[in-house]
Amino acid sequence: MKKLVNRPEDFVREMLEGMEKAHGDLIGVNYEPRYIYRKEMPQGKVAVISGGGSGHEPMHGGFVGIGMLDAACPGEVFTSPTPDQMYEAGKKVHAGGGVLFIVKNYSGDVMNFEMATEMLNMEGIPTINVLVDDDVAVKDSLYTQGRRGTGTTVLMEKIVGAAAEWGKYDLKRLADLARKVNVNGRSMGMALTPCTVPTAGKPTFELGEDEMEIGIGIHGEPGRYREPLATADEITERLALAIIEDGPYTRTVKEWDLDAGGWKEFELTDPPFQPGDHVIAMVNSMGGTPVSELYVVYRKLHEICEKKGLTIVRNLIGAYITSLEMQGVMITLLKVDDEILEMWDKPVKTPALRWGM
Amino acid sequence: MKKLVNRPEDFVREMLEGMEKAHGDLIGVNYEPRYIYRKEMPQGKVAVISGGGSGHEPMHGGFVGIGMLDAACPGEVFTSPTPDQMYEAGKKVHAGGGVLFIVKNYSGDVMNFEMATEMLNMEGIPTINVLVDDDVAVKDSLYTQGRRGTGTTVLMEKIVGAAAEWGKYDLKRLADLARKVNVNGRSMGMALTPCTVPTAGKPTFELGEDEMEIGIGIHGEPGRYREPLATADEITERLALAIIEDGPYTRTVKEWDLDAGGWKEFELTDPPFQPGDHVIAMVNSMGGTPVSELYVVYRKLHEICEKKGLTIVRNLIGAYITSLEMQGVMITLLKVDDEILEMWDKPVKTPALRWGM
Repeated sequence: MKKLVNRPEDFVREMLEGMEKAHGDLIGVNYEPRYIYRKEMPQGKVAVISGGGSGHEPMHGGFVGIGMLDAACPGEVFTSPTPDQMYEAGKKVHAGGGVLFIVKNYSGDVMNFEMATEMLNMEGIPTINVLVDDDVAVKDSLYTQGRRGTGTTVLMEKIVGAAAEWGKYDLKRLADLARKVNVNGRSMGMALTPCTVPTAGKPTFELGEDEMEIGIGIHGEPGRYREPLATADEITERLALAIIEDGPYTRTVKEWDLDAGGWKEFELTDPPFQPGDHVIAMVNSMGGTPVSELYVVYRKLHEICEKKGLTIVRNLIGAYITSLEMQGVMITLLKVDDEILEMWDKPVKTPALRWGM
Repeated sequence: MKKLVNRPEDFVREMLEGMEKAHGDLIGVNYEPRYIYRKEMPQGKVAVISGGGSGHEPMHGGFVGIGMLDAACPGEVFTSPTPDQMYEAGKKVHAGGGVLFIVKNYSGDVMNFEMATEMLNMEGIPTINVLVDDDVAVKDSLYTQGRRGTGTTVLMEKIVGAAAEWGKYDLKRLADLARKVNVNGRSMGMALTPCTVPTAGKPTFELGEDEMEIGIGIHGEPGRYREPLATADEITERLALAIIEDGPYTRTVKEWDLDAGGWKEFELTDPPFQPGDHVIAMVNSMGGTPVSELYVVYRKLHEICEKKGLTIVRNLIGAYITSLEMQGVMITLLKVDDEILEMWDKPVKTPALRWGM
């Protein structure tokens, strides 16, 4: 196993210790149960919290700081964190404004965040759980009912984090914005190589020397299809067209209803992209792909978007939501309006994303 | 070859096209000869320019912008750019303050930057070439007389770029600062896997499944030794102690002398680290290593520095100077004083490094 690790079972803890030592001015780490928290929390601000299995760094811990997340709950690699992590993180950073949970759509995460949502609300801390389910590749995959939550999570954490910090949104308005980001964001990824979970010691799946997987999940879950290696332009086209030409997507989501003091279920529909739309484009490394290759992809993505009448008004190119050392790329497009764009442009200061301050 | 490429011979050009489309507000690209340049150059400011073979992204092109580089000259992958690239880039961004070339110590780069230095000075554009030769691993390796230029380059470009932008240093004072950064910075890297140059189509070297190379060069040049895979802590110790315990290093450098209007050669000595020193620490991915593993390394590096009496006052953790998709890590320590630290903290806005604006 070619990795910089000590004992595989210590990997997540040691990573957290490194983050704490490196960014102790901005974040703290609680080890029992595990969560990363922002050190100075403005009074009255809604606390924005996410979490999920480790192995997707810098997401989520690298996004804790000013203008993005207030806490992140890391599970073991590719394993959901437990409800007590989210519950304790919520109690720690709640500053009078309540808690917004950003939840990627994987069965374990969804269940555990729901439990923590209920626990916090019972405790008198108003908490809403919003879902990210943006991966157009497959529906009902390994670990998931419905679409998986992937790249849009990064953009949502930035935009919603800014609205909580700089826009001083209250909890309900913040949940509305988060939902708007989710329905307007779509992603799809692909893998050139698999990755190895440290404690497993061998690759999560096998890919032939001349094969790639289109529509890969961020835990190495199967995608849409496997095919012979193609050029960067062909790969970009496969991903971009799947995203841009995706039809309306309707599902039922379950969120905590603050007024009713209980759960509500409702339908949510993603509107398809339309010519004339303005978008934020993310070209994301799956972890092991160098930035030079991402720019080759971006070049083609830009051309495809132009042809389809989409204008890329902002972009984010790098490794933001990853699968350990997996080589490959994920594309995310998010349709923006003035509100989303204003929040995107606000300052942010976190270990992994920083501008304007 | 598992890469996101089209025709391998188009790789560098297509990467540049992607960068131009993504960051056109900040940078422009000239294709014949090739250089990336900053769009708006303040009058009177010294132009800070670097360059070298491609494949080390985001260095150097990703550091062109405000408060860092004003131009970067990319060669083909792992191949020096030609003197006409540096010469034309110099003429393009010269704004009355002259040109500072930051040159990594590889024979081709050194020769070609010297030629461009001479050409620009002959043309009446005052130009000084400063060297980076900070890699403690080996002396006189493949492509190099003396030590190789590696991680300190990133820190120098940030610090010297800030001094040119915000400190309004003149050319001679800027060269003095650059030299000070070089003698106080030391690096060493290691590889878990090799990398593949797109036009070659096969790995630059072979490494067994249970082997690693300590002291690797950024083009895959041989390091100090090859040995069985060790733990992250052991690897960190190998690199950190080689850096911290390195003795004084003296070599002769050749720089353009503005007053004499010709070349001068002089001796330069790197002072060893001393207990009590304050340092900037960079833990850098060789390209394919995920940030989670870098934090495991940083954790141990922090501990070693403490034991050795060095205080890490700033850090940079991520992929900044890379070898395509190579897995592995490089550590750089730079002893700082008030001047260096002040410039480190100044705002920067480039595709790959951004804070404070």
